[in-house]
Amino acid sequence: MKATRNRLEFLKKDAIQGFIKYIGMKPVSLQQGAFITRLKLEKRHLQQDGFAHAGILATMADHTAGYAGYTLIPEGRRILTVEYKINYLRPARGEFLECRARVIKPGKQLLVTEADVYSIDGDDITLVARAMHTMASVPVEKIAGD
Amino acid sequence: MKATRNRLEFLKKDAIQGFIKYIGMKPVSLQQGAFITRLKLEKRHLQQDGFAHAGILATMADHTAGYAGYTLIPEGRRILTVEYKINYLRPARGEFLECRARVIKPGKQLLVTEADVYSIDGDDITLVARAMHTMASVPVEKIAGD
Amino acid sequence: MKATRNRLEFLKKDAIQGFIKYIGMKPVSLQQGAFITRLKLEKRHLQQDGFAHAGILATMADHTAGYAGYTLIPEGRRILTVEYKINYLRPARGEFLECRARVIKPGKQLLVTEADVYSIDGDDITLVARAMHTMASVPVEKIAGD
Amino acid sequence: MKATRNRLEFLKKDAIQGFIKYIGMKPVSLQQGAFITRLKLEKRHLQQDGFAHAGILATMADHTAGYAGYTLIPEGRRILTVEYKINYLRPARGEFLECRARVIKPGKQLLVTEADVYSIDGDDITLVARAMHTMASVPVEKIAGD
Repeated sequence: MKATRNRLEFLKKDAIQGFIKYIGMKPVSLQQGAFITRLKLEKRHLQQDGFAHAGILATMADHTAGYAGYTLIPEGRRILTVEYKINYLRPARGEFLECRARVIKPGKQLLVTEADVYSIDGDDITLVARAMHTMASVPVEKIAGD
Repeated sequence: MKATRNRLEFLKKDAIQGFIKYIGMKPVSLQQGAFITRLKLEKRHLQQDGFAHAGILATMADHTAGYAGYTLIPEGRRILTVEYKINYLRPARGEFLECRARVIKPGKQLLVTEADVYSIDGDDITLVARAMHTMASVPVEKIAGD
Repeated sequence: MKATRNRLEFLKKDAIQGFIKYIGMKPVSLQQGAFITRLKLEKRHLQQDGFAHAGILATMADHTAGYAGYTLIPEGRRILTVEYKINYLRPARGEFLECRARVIKPGKQLLVTEADVYSIDGDDITLVARAMHTMASVPVEKIAGD
Repeated sequence: MKATRNRLEFLKKDAIQGFIKYIGMKPVSLQQGAFITRLKLEKRHLQQDGFAHAGILATMADHTAGYAGYTLIPEGRRILTVEYKINYLRPARGEFLECRARVIKPGKQLLVTEADVYSIDGDDITLVARAMHTMASVPVEKIAGD
């Protein structure tokens, strides 16, 4: 299942709404099965020791991977996160966080994705977290959202 | 290692700052090895289909479990999340989310915690996610936060 | 979906074949959505430091949870493990390992299960590992096994 | 911490004992932070549908990753698996299974590793599982194995 250029443009915008818009994530580039996003780190994103909160990194990893998955499913379906695991490799600080996600196993009902989160400070790029997700592709009728 | 009543009071407040305050989490009760938190669901917490974003549930689970861990370590140490896994059992909607976390294996350097997230709508309480975390207890000198 | 007594008897036997028989796992009790198994620890199960190998505990957790899932799906379907996460809480030694698994979220296509592994030495029972799995229920035609 | 050639030779042999020997795993190549192993698939490794049992793949992934970790820690320490997550991407069949593991984050006390398991059938090589582990490096005195 290959997304058209129009579909990719739509998804890139669709990705930024609700909670994702609220925390300030931005799309960088969206391709078949791969999505990159960024977030400018601000005080509101930190935890008690001054690092980016683990929840911010997890949200970036989950959401970026989810929309990477969207590029590989038909328009009448939705991606829902079944589960994931995330390892925090180093405390995250710096100017930006960048998340690079990819689908490692497409599928009609289940997709497996990976996402790396990097902290960026000037020229320094550091891998700070890695996640692996199971995503479900679900017909839109099944999740009637209101 | 048992926290004093003063220490518990301190931790209950300390838990709500930065990203956690920004998203609106509130403490409900904090005891030795167990913490309960709540969040009033608002538009800013939702994803594209009108459910609570997976990242909100993960953040609640991670943070509530982390502070459950704080009650079992000495004051000169900090809790950092090493990793976790979370399963989303049902789409999350409703008036509130409530997270109940507990330490299932204390330890000097590593603690294992679990957290359940419930959606609450009037009298309906539904389990919507379950997570299991590995937390590290780290001397404060080691993570110098500025 | 409720298994008949006959179906439970069948599954309890069906569970012990191939790799599971080879390593010496035995069924203890199988009920709707819950399965208990045991393994007498022998030299062949150990790793380099004299503990039960992590792979033995994972195999017990996965398999016991999978057959707990089998009790909740129609006869024409099979359980396949989608993924799991396991935490090792303590090194495992003793006379027996016992695994207690349960379905925490049934479903037509996906089930979520949990399994605890205990080491048993005389009267001492110690929790040594906990796992959480995502299982798929798949029509038998789809996995044609030969 | 860099292993000498002698140390690598020792570890490559040390890796194959107990449960690992019993199931028939063989070392292919061991380098700093990376280990490859193989297993010839036989009837004793299969589950009820004729595929390699999920427990075999998990054992290969865990053990191969653990010894990849051993190459990066001092001789007086041991590797213990703290936890892992594994995704099964496709049912595993074929002549051989091959596991390729690497350390993605070394550390004094914790290491993070990844392992891919491939099924090999003649010239066909298929990725069938991917795992991510947290490993602990522990002084040998602390785990006195008898």
